[in-house]
Amino acid sequence: MTETVTPQRTLTVALGDRSYPIHIGVGLLQQANVLMPYLAGQQVMVVTNDAIAPLYLETLCATFPDHLDVRTVVLPDGEQHKTIEQVGRIWDALLEAGFNRRCTLIALGGGVIGDMVGYAAASYQRGVAFIQVPTTLLSQVDSSVGGKTGVNHPLGKNMIGAFWQPKAVLVDTDTLTTLPSRELSAGLAEVVKYGLIRDEAFLSWLEENMQALRNVEPVVIAEAIAKSCQIKADIVAEDETEQGVRALLNLGHTFGHAIEAHQGYGNWLHGEAVGAGMSMAAMLSHQLGWIDDAALARVQAVIESAGLPLAAPANMSVDDFLVRMRLDKKNIDEKLRLVLLTALGDACVSDETPTATLRDLLQRYPRD
Amino acid sequence: MTETVTPQRTLTVALGDRSYPIHIGVGLLQQANVLMPYLAGQQVMVVTNDAIAPLYLETLCATFPDHLDVRTVVLPDGEQHKTIEQVGRIWDALLEAGFNRRCTLIALGGGVIGDMVGYAAASYQRGVAFIQVPTTLLSQVDSSVGGKTGVNHPLGKNMIGAFWQPKAVLVDTDTLTTLPSRELSAGLAEVVKYGLIRDEAFLSWLEENMQALRNVEPVVIAEAIAKSCQIKADIVAEDETEQGVRALLNLGHTFGHAIEAHQGYGNWLHGEAVGAGMSMAAMLSHQLGWIDDAALARVQAVIESAGLPLAAPANMSVDDFLVRMRLDKKNIDEKLRLVLLTALGDACVSDETPTATLRDLLQRYPRD
Repeated sequence: MTETVTPQRTLTVALGDRSYPIHIGVGLLQQANVLMPYLAGQQVMVVTNDAIAPLYLETLCATFPDHLDVRTVVLPDGEQHKTIEQVGRIWDALLEAGFNRRCTLIALGGGVIGDMVGYAAASYQRGVAFIQVPTTLLSQVDSSVGGKTGVNHPLGKNMIGAFWQPKAVLVDTDTLTTLPSRELSAGLAEVVKYGLIRDEAFLSWLEENMQALRNVEPVVIAEAIAKSCQIKADIVAEDETEQGVRALLNLGHTFGHAIEAHQGYGNWLHGEAVGAGMSMAAMLSHQLGWIDDAALARVQAVIESAGLPLAAPANMSVDDFLVRMRLDKKNIDEKLRLVLLTALGDACVSDETPTATLRDLLQRYPRD
Repeated sequence: MTETVTPQRTLTVALGDRSYPIHIGVGLLQQANVLMPYLAGQQVMVVTNDAIAPLYLETLCATFPDHLDVRTVVLPDGEQHKTIEQVGRIWDALLEAGFNRRCTLIALGGGVIGDMVGYAAASYQRGVAFIQVPTTLLSQVDSSVGGKTGVNHPLGKNMIGAFWQPKAVLVDTDTLTTLPSRELSAGLAEVVKYGLIRDEAFLSWLEENMQALRNVEPVVIAEAIAKSCQIKADIVAEDETEQGVRALLNLGHTFGHAIEAHQGYGNWLHGEAVGAGMSMAAMLSHQLGWIDDAALARVQAVIESAGLPLAAPANMSVDDFLVRMRLDKKNIDEKLRLVLLTALGDACVSDETPTATLRDLLQRYPRD
């Protein structure tokens, strides 16, 4: 962690002819002309939500030259609105504007907006360009990298979607200054995850800098975002469609999705559920003898210090978990596949956890 | 056209690691075990419509071994039901069955079913396997080859969708014996199109064999299907995502889509609209001096002999056409791009038709 932090830095997600840049910096929303080379044509549809629109929509739109045909769509805020119906509103707006295959969608907002706009772009006229402008820590370090797009279904999270890569990602760290601290913590869950699955040195750095991160100190937060994006970009470049190593990015997510689905989307933030889920995965890894007491304690301490919940919801039984977990996309032909820790900074996908062991974990895991 | 016709033949659509076979033959529905190598896992969802289900659903399902988990979904028949809501019913069924990423969707029916099931597969859990079992001539020669999937929107045909390739296509020519003659003619529109854009010898062969084709003589119809699939497969292999030569497959479609959209989906069959649309494109090509009187007369005669309408709907004004045509996906940044004939067996995409010339054609083109 000795790199010099400059006001702006650019990473590249290497995916052959679908490679794209991630620009990270302070005040980048006022420099959206950096996006001009990535527009497919004159038609631009900026999609955001009603919480973000008053803060940043005008700033972003003001940066585009007059000759562009810039339209906007404002959707309701919240994970509970991550539905095919809301994606339909984007399609309606595109068609009402008469936008063609050379239009460009811009997603201004958190992961929910990014996922929906990406899916809208993947499916409009069988695929048009889109650009991510993520405004939450979670979306900056996670959903803006990797090309996963989609919406929820009443029977499961992210069940409908596509792999569709953006043309560019623009991360303005200034947007984090207006982010509620609960959402900042939810983003830190994914940052911690990168350390846990891939990089013990980064994990140690996070332990040391957690308070600075929670205070949104610009240099520290930019460093954490860049490092997180780099780890994810490396993994995605290795395995774009999640046949292998990319599955490790789901540490804590099988448990976490079960919590989110059971509680009703939007009641637990995604990152909060992943925080508790990573703790559950770590405890299962410990129960299997893969990590020791000290490692488990470090995992739980860093999750807690990020301001995340460790306990599972009081109203979830063992069977509530099991039923929801079997619907998770990682479970191929009835075998329950879980991401588990083999060390701090190293993880694997295993389908060999005996059901009895899992039931035992779910039974004794602390509830609220 | 000197190849020997065997009871079964197999073509390959060459798309690298997404290449797939098209099996064409008599009685193949009873031999669906030929599909076994293309199933991704044990979970199979056969999707059909309420017109096809009583004819072929049991036959197809009976061919699968007992250890597979085979489910069915029956949707309402007709282009007017080619909507995101009906695709939603497929997703509901997949989730209610608990099907995972290794499930396989099978589309049993015409182009509407094929397009919807393909799109449902493209978007379920960000993409699962699907197989086409087309039961209409149109879908056998057109929509089962090329990977275009999607649904209609009130403001435009096929506006929502994805490029998604099947794992295999199974064409049983027996299914054409139950096809209404109006639908057979609609399929012949696309067969004629292949001759017009690419192969003058095939066009001559069609002129000679049109009556046999309309009588569904097995050897002749199998020959026409195989030749059509081969021409389309060659074009798609050259240009999978329609950046260049693939656009030629849209001969007659810009006019045709305008007719379908204006009349309300389902009132004119797709192939009927394409038949009239090809005649309009040919007359425009003639007006521009690209083809002579004799060529125009041959185009219109072959369309008419296939049992297709030449006249445009009486209730469509010049502006009704122009407004609908500008929303067509082929029109990039306001320029109207049309597929026109440069000779019999040769076509091009042109965006240089003066609006006045187009208006003149639309004004004088015969109406019902």
